[in-house]
Amino acid sequence: MKKIAVILSGSGVFDGAEIHESVLALHAIEKAHATWHCFAPNVEQLHVINHLTGEVTNESRNVLVESARIARGNIKDVEKLDVNDFDALLLPGGFGAAKNLTDFAINGAQCSVNTHVAAACRAFAEAGKPAGYLCIAPTIIPLIYPEAVKGTIGTDTDTASGFNALGGEHIDCPVDEIVYDEKHNVLSTPAYMLASTISQANSGIEKLVNKLVSLA
Amino acid sequence: MKKIAVILSGSGVFDGAEIHESVLALHAIEKAHATWHCFAPNVEQLHVINHLTGEVTNESRNVLVESARIARGNIKDVEKLDVNDFDALLLPGGFGAAKNLTDFAINGAQCSVNTHVAAACRAFAEAGKPAGYLCIAPTIIPLIYPEAVKGTIGTDTDTASGFNALGGEHIDCPVDEIVYDEKHNVLSTPAYMLASTISQANSGIEKLVNKLVSLA
Repeated sequence: MKKIAVILSGSGVFDGAEIHESVLALHAIEKAHATWHCFAPNVEQLHVINHLTGEVTNESRNVLVESARIARGNIKDVEKLDVNDFDALLLPGGFGAAKNLTDFAINGAQCSVNTHVAAACRAFAEAGKPAGYLCIAPTIIPLIYPEAVKGTIGTDTDTASGFNALGGEHIDCPVDEIVYDEKHNVLSTPAYMLASTISQANSGIEKLVNKLVSLA
Repeated sequence: MKKIAVILSGSGVFDGAEIHESVLALHAIEKAHATWHCFAPNVEQLHVINHLTGEVTNESRNVLVESARIARGNIKDVEKLDVNDFDALLLPGGFGAAKNLTDFAINGAQCSVNTHVAAACRAFAEAGKPAGYLCIAPTIIPLIYPEAVKGTIGTDTDTASGFNALGGEHIDCPVDEIVYDEKHNVLSTPAYMLASTISQANSGIEKLVNKLVSLA
């Protein structure tokens, strides 16, 4: 069975990993007869958002600890992710990908990536092993891969400009499709950047995961 | 389109609604061509558990606010749930169902139910509208329905004894099957009381949701 490493960024669309995307991705990995293995950085979240009101709270929460909610406790510090143990990499979206894994949500094209997340992503890139990025997570792709790497965050022009400003080549893509940069072996799909239902999000995610596992 | 009210109990298996079950249930509702509408009680959680270590923390979190993470903010106070607006009711599992909706996890057969959750569940029972309970949530069934109501929490003998002590009639059930009490129009399935994978949990959940929507 192919082993897929999954990097989460918290638990909740507004300050962490998007919960639906994460669960759909893990389920798709199982349905593709592969196994999932969750990781997250052991750092504080950028902030905590009350998902009922949308307001920033005065709490602090840890990305690894909150990600463990999605993984039912079955998760490790991304610092321990060894590329040699896995066949492919997958990053679900949610604002956590642009707030906790990078600070793209705050600093746009001047953003930086968490050291251990960057090390893990670069290890898969350098090994030529396939990687998939969902929703807003593809903004990490140009930080990892060489200039003109192709990827999608859907059709949002501001975010697409950010992707290009980081050195990537953004490709518009509908919710049920994927973009595959064959040269760099990296996949992306818009998911909740465009989806208005769980089924819509799943259409692209399942397609991406099936391709990812077939490439692994 | 049939409208399904869903009562969540937080966000995370050990102190709230089980995240996989909740997402699988909402997705199954969409796939059955119905719509989902989330609710949760506006109360503090019994406690907060660090899902990485399993330890109780000194934090306090609100059930409605945390449930909003699963619902992407699209959720209401269960006090406002009017049975007349919906065709069926669904309660995912997770320890939150036995810690926040009731205190079954603490007090077993001497447990009590949150007032507004009880009012909502009883309204569906009295209207003869179908209801579905997943995982540990079926322990609520005997608190709502008359003596000898049939339900399942899988095969765990302690929890099954608790179900019977509350006045229900427990039926052992495998993970990919459902128990339907035809007289009271109430369904249950073990989900993560027995599942060891997302796909296993989904097998029973999808079966239950399809039956629930067909009865609605």
